[in-house]
Amino acid sequence: MATDNPATHDPATDAQLAAIDAWWRAANYLSVGQLYLRQNALLRRPLQNQDIKRRLLGHWGTTPGLTFVYAHLNRVITDRDQDVLLVAGPGHGGPALVASTWLEGSYSEIYGAVSRDEAGMELLVRQFSYPGGIPSHAAPETPGSINEGGELGYSLAHGFGAVLDNPGLVAAVVIGDGEAETGALSASWDAHVFVDPHRDGAVLPILHLNGWKIANPTVLARMPQDQLERRMRGHGYEPFFVTVDDPDAVDVAHRDFAATLDACLDRIAGIQAHARGGTSASADTAEDEARREPWPMIVLRSPKGWTGPTEVDGKPVEGTWRAHQIPLPVSPDDDAAREALTAWMRSYRPEDLFDDDGRPRPQLTALSPVGDRRLGATPFANGGRLLAPLRLPPVTPVAADVPEPGRQRNSPMLTLGSWLAEVIRANPETFRLFGPDETASNRLQHVYEATDKAWNARLLPVDENLAPDGRVIEVLSEHLCQGLLEGYLLTGRHGVFDCYEAFVHIVDSMFNQHAKWLKVHQRLPWRQPIASFTYLLSSHVWQQDHNGFSHQDPGFIDHAVNKSADVVRVYLPPDTNTLLSTMDHCLRSTDRINIVVSGKQPSLTWLGPEDAAHHCARGLGVWEFAGTERAGEKPDVVLACAGDVPTTETVAAAQLLAHHVPDLSVRVVNVVDLMRLIDDRSHPHGLSAADFDGIFTEDRPVIFAYHGYASLIHRLTYKRTNHAGMHVRGYHEEGTTTTPFDMALLNGIDRYQLAIDAIDRVPALHGTQTVLRQRLQDAQLAARAYTREVGEDPDHITDWSLAADPVL
Amino acid sequence: MATDNPATHDPATDAQLAAIDAWWRAANYLSVGQLYLRQNALLRRPLQNQDIKRRLLGHWGTTPGLTFVYAHLNRVITDRDQDVLLVAGPGHGGPALVASTWLEGSYSEIYGAVSRDEAGMELLVRQFSYPGGIPSHAAPETPGSINEGGELGYSLAHGFGAVLDNPGLVAAVVIGDGEAETGALSASWDAHVFVDPHRDGAVLPILHLNGWKIANPTVLARMPQDQLERRMRGHGYEPFFVTVDDPDAVDVAHRDFAATLDACLDRIAGIQAHARGGTSASADTAEDEARREPWPMIVLRSPKGWTGPTEVDGKPVEGTWRAHQIPLPVSPDDDAAREALTAWMRSYRPEDLFDDDGRPRPQLTALSPVGDRRLGATPFANGGRLLAPLRLPPVTPVAADVPEPGRQRNSPMLTLGSWLAEVIRANPETFRLFGPDETASNRLQHVYEATDKAWNARLLPVDENLAPDGRVIEVLSEHLCQGLLEGYLLTGRHGVFDCYEAFVHIVDSMFNQHAKWLKVHQRLPWRQPIASFTYLLSSHVWQQDHNGFSHQDPGFIDHAVNKSADVVRVYLPPDTNTLLSTMDHCLRSTDRINIVVSGKQPSLTWLGPEDAAHHCARGLGVWEFAGTERAGEKPDVVLACAGDVPTTETVAAAQLLAHHVPDLSVRVVNVVDLMRLIDDRSHPHGLSAADFDGIFTEDRPVIFAYHGYASLIHRLTYKRTNHAGMHVRGYHEEGTTTTPFDMALLNGIDRYQLAIDAIDRVPALHGTQTVLRQRLQDAQLAARAYTREVGEDPDHITDWSLAADPVL
Repeated sequence: MATDNPATHDPATDAQLAAIDAWWRAANYLSVGQLYLRQNALLRRPLQNQDIKRRLLGHWGTTPGLTFVYAHLNRVITDRDQDVLLVAGPGHGGPALVASTWLEGSYSEIYGAVSRDEAGMELLVRQFSYPGGIPSHAAPETPGSINEGGELGYSLAHGFGAVLDNPGLVAAVVIGDGEAETGALSASWDAHVFVDPHRDGAVLPILHLNGWKIANPTVLARMPQDQLERRMRGHGYEPFFVTVDDPDAVDVAHRDFAATLDACLDRIAGIQAHARGGTSASADTAEDEARREPWPMIVLRSPKGWTGPTEVDGKPVEGTWRAHQIPLPVSPDDDAAREALTAWMRSYRPEDLFDDDGRPRPQLTALSPVGDRRLGATPFANGGRLLAPLRLPPVTPVAADVPEPGRQRNSPMLTLGSWLAEVIRANPETFRLFGPDETASNRLQHVYEATDKAWNARLLPVDENLAPDGRVIEVLSEHLCQGLLEGYLLTGRHGVFDCYEAFVHIVDSMFNQHAKWLKVHQRLPWRQPIASFTYLLSSHVWQQDHNGFSHQDPGFIDHAVNKSADVVRVYLPPDTNTLLSTMDHCLRSTDRINIVVSGKQPSLTWLGPEDAAHHCARGLGVWEFAGTERAGEKPDVVLACAGDVPTTETVAAAQLLAHHVPDLSVRVVNVVDLMRLIDDRSHPHGLSAADFDGIFTEDRPVIFAYHGYASLIHRLTYKRTNHAGMHVRGYHEEGTTTTPFDMALLNGIDRYQLAIDAIDRVPALHGTQTVLRQRLQDAQLAARAYTREVGEDPDHITDWSLAADPVL
Repeated sequence: MATDNPATHDPATDAQLAAIDAWWRAANYLSVGQLYLRQNALLRRPLQNQDIKRRLLGHWGTTPGLTFVYAHLNRVITDRDQDVLLVAGPGHGGPALVASTWLEGSYSEIYGAVSRDEAGMELLVRQFSYPGGIPSHAAPETPGSINEGGELGYSLAHGFGAVLDNPGLVAAVVIGDGEAETGALSASWDAHVFVDPHRDGAVLPILHLNGWKIANPTVLARMPQDQLERRMRGHGYEPFFVTVDDPDAVDVAHRDFAATLDACLDRIAGIQAHARGGTSASADTAEDEARREPWPMIVLRSPKGWTGPTEVDGKPVEGTWRAHQIPLPVSPDDDAAREALTAWMRSYRPEDLFDDDGRPRPQLTALSPVGDRRLGATPFANGGRLLAPLRLPPVTPVAADVPEPGRQRNSPMLTLGSWLAEVIRANPETFRLFGPDETASNRLQHVYEATDKAWNARLLPVDENLAPDGRVIEVLSEHLCQGLLEGYLLTGRHGVFDCYEAFVHIVDSMFNQHAKWLKVHQRLPWRQPIASFTYLLSSHVWQQDHNGFSHQDPGFIDHAVNKSADVVRVYLPPDTNTLLSTMDHCLRSTDRINIVVSGKQPSLTWLGPEDAAHHCARGLGVWEFAGTERAGEKPDVVLACAGDVPTTETVAAAQLLAHHVPDLSVRVVNVVDLMRLIDDRSHPHGLSAADFDGIFTEDRPVIFAYHGYASLIHRLTYKRTNHAGMHVRGYHEEGTTTTPFDMALLNGIDRYQLAIDAIDRVPALHGTQTVLRQRLQDAQLAARAYTREVGEDPDHITDWSLAADPVL
């Protein structure tokens, strides 16, 4: 189909192409220097033993491809006055990006010591992959990066997340052909279905086929060209091929790539102009269908280690896997190897590229864009510079009214959905919700009163809540949800990822990488705080009666707490109003990863909005309404809980005890912020020893009912005075398809068991409660038998509330 | 290209199609019964309140598609005398598979009470998604399943794993269009690149486009047909489309699908005949290229919830997302709803399908294959029936010779590679190695002396170790590696997945599902033991000098130990010979998940082959050669270690103490089998309290240097007498690109720190060692400063061995 093209540009001139080539050579020269040299970066004198790094730790293979793309992007950014974000997906592209940002000046503006002159160049080469220096892949330390290239597979999702709600931005995403084999990357091609050309920017994927991974050919590079073209068209793109058959025909390659880049950007501009000229969110028509033209993408086929050694020891290197890491082994004492390295570096003609002071010559600096348009300086890669706090509506209008604790039921997630609808309304361009087809299943469907689900594909009359400009993105790939939200946050916006609790493990490794990124990012003064990543986990382990054992796993919390205390927060709000307060807090926070776990089924509401806010602010507290403490006396036993189902069972257990052992002094403690359990010397949210002992006592038995695996509570309270008194109940991998209360029974976290635990552990009761103990056990058996026969929980369990008489 | 076709078959007869339709109606009838009924499965009397389940927990949407495919496969299995494994990828296909296996008789043979008559049918419908019953998706309890459909995305990888080395097997893999959006599934299409038509069987993917996920349209269903065709061709398949436009035109659908199935199986037979007629593992030629014909696949487009209610409450249901779960709400007291349900069930004409005793009529039973050819009875779905133990060569020929402990260096992984080469030679059809492009990077390259890497795509002259029949599969997708090995093991073979330690988190969730599967599988007497899944993790946290912080994460062990003690084993062999012994043990084990962590760099070898075997058999032990204990006396301090780098640092610390504090009695304990730390009442590998106290003492300080996060050691020893004496050092998320010893320093696990810890914790030394303490701290600072200046670790660290004098 034809595209209106309002923005064709003049082709690159010979002078521009010459500048691009010079720029590329300079970046390659500096990259080789980083791999090999401790000093003598300008080769002022013949390379000596002490000039060579003792350990050669870097990757050459992908470097010349990345510098090639970087050099060419410089031209089009300036020519078109275009914001571009470069996402460098291939592994270990560090030297390319560091060299390039140094050339354009953005590196030295951030790291003053690494100045854009010979002294800075000496530091530049030495610091790379050197103890106390910088990593070999793009990292938080790398200007212009939004988390790419360490663990592989997330570049395309990050690029798509970046362009959402940034209509003027083009994300040029270089995708390595190794990376392209990963699951996350494979699932990301479809993300354009959620991009609205009217309101969002565009991603330009640049699939870089250099043919090899560490030691193997890549699948995409070895498939016939016509198959690859079908594949890309099948993903919804129009592929433009640039193939470098002859490594020496550099001029041809530059001209080809420049023309292709122009053609692609023209095509993008055309699609956007077309979409922006019309209406975007209309119902589906044949015209709308026609408007969904394929986005352009580039397939750049170039030799791995291009411009590096052709052969070493008689074996081909350039264009093979042998160029992946250090293509030319250079031990410091090997004269011949040092000479070969010198010849390689001199092949870039450094004297033409740098002046006597080591500064890039004007031909190079003239090519670079200026100011924030530089790829290393763009605020889109330092999203905190663009971050504006959310406009957060009050939670009180949607909060549950609680005249008395534990009398009425509300669905926490359903209520939260009403508030999130208001958040979406108040922040129509800076907040989004992401979920793997589970937003309604997680009971957040009220958000669809304020917005739709983004969908820029065919619509049918039967469809509901789908529109190109929807604020909710639903795709059955947790990887893509996570990657899109990361890209969205890293470019200065806000959002939430809602997910089934068990299946968030699918992104464990992406969580790791984001947590590690945030930890380093926090320590860099030039990186501005970004909005926190908030996981909203529902359909949790205790509410999987539809799904059973495969859907029961509360271990994401355990996984998360291994990461830095400066980053990770875990919240287990026990009811509707505490969930609202928790989410309000999370959406105000920056530079954190918040994990919020909440049930979706109607459950008892314990605290009114004000009490809930107060409770959440403290993170944990004694619930006097639920206990039987006498003022001024230490309780006989503490019943503690974290998580909604454990809270209900704990309060019920306390009521059983109050009824049957009225003299027993029981304290009930509820924990919302799990990090409060840690000592304040180990975690910023930690409780002091005195405060902890004041709440949990120094010596009374604590029966702790916990949402997840019990060991985590032991871990967090390991250094507490009363840790020996902690008796923790949690999920211990006993699950099947059954009712919620049967799940509690199976895992020994039910009210009867908690009461038995208390009786067993209070010394004064030893041996005195055999009748009650037996009755509690009988009640367990009876509940189980009823459930198995009738197929649902007994009424006295499901109808129970704090107002009801305790029933055995 | 033309395909020789040795195996065209007669098209389905009208009688066959009628039988297929009857079979399909019966399976659908029984599926609806499972969703709704507690009893009265044959509708003997009008449905009453008590006949309806109190909680309707199941999924109708995908069911009729699965039963449709199942019915049709029955015919071709018999007609062609063909082994077929059905992998049912879509979520919640449980009712379809249970109904189908009951119809063919395989269900009742396993679960005798659920007999193939009315009494059995009553149990059949009631047990589904019922407390104490069976799950709503395919599960270990489901005959014919190899782990599919709980968490989504693994069906295609499982199917490919199943057909490797099974030349006579066709795996028909039904892929849900929701599932198809996941990362793992997206990455799995390419797996045919590793299939050798000469030696392996074939996968027939059946992409089932029913159009909807839980609440959203699917991406693949909404893309134009020509784009979808390009996509499948781009993945290397020839798609055959069967489209059900009119839900009522059932006859057309049956005829179409039967003909398409025949065409696909003919095509598969042709490809295989072609490949098997020629040579398979030859070098690449134009002819070879021509031989790589695309494999056939089917795109079945049919309405979600086909044959279910068309409309409910005026809203379309069949063919929409509303059919996903329970399409027709039926509360027990609602007469009209019960009537609607009755009408729906009667629409399948049960009287034509079941005789008066509730048995399937002969028309149905005649369609089913017999014996092990039935999809629910095939041994390929109960792999233990096919399992033969590996022929394991002795490890001694490759083991390191150790005249004295800690004198010489070996690379554990390099040595292991030599042994694995022998394992491959001895088991040329039942053992495979899988890795994400890291087998050589993990130093297992000696395996290529025995085999190649599987590669059935274009070959270039520069290629090494690639061949269609290679026993190593390398693809840069941890998901695909894991999924292929799962499929290979579940069908009765053996293998190992080698992976960078940090990035194995990518498959955390797949690990969960496999661990859960094994736990349930172990409890089912009819499921025979299968070979264990062995993770071989290298390039670990302490050896990431190339890669830095993003590649440092030892948390997979923490993740794993949350799963059942009956399944999970963790081994941290400290050197080459213990690694060999550990792997020998793991490859003999069944029904476990073994996690083995080992370094790849040359490191000190401590134990000769016999001592290593003895040490590994005990799982942990006192290393007398490393300590300074006096016979008959309790030591002053215990230095314990687990992991290769911590072991070296611990032995070095002991030597420092022996030199500088010669009177101190130091015991050194090395732990290989981490589960030994647990109490024997909690884990089958656990140590008794007496044995544990004998080794770790009841009251002496224990300085424990651990490979991963320290909290795990506290967790495992939580109930031990001396747990308060445990002082654990491990990785605490301090990492960057630096030398190995600098990493130890950063995380406080270096020899100097361990010696300081010991001095600080032995009461008798309090205040007496200030000079030594200061010297140890100075040594830390000096090592760090040297590393930062010179770029490598000091010689006295890298050259140190047990024979060397300790140097500060």
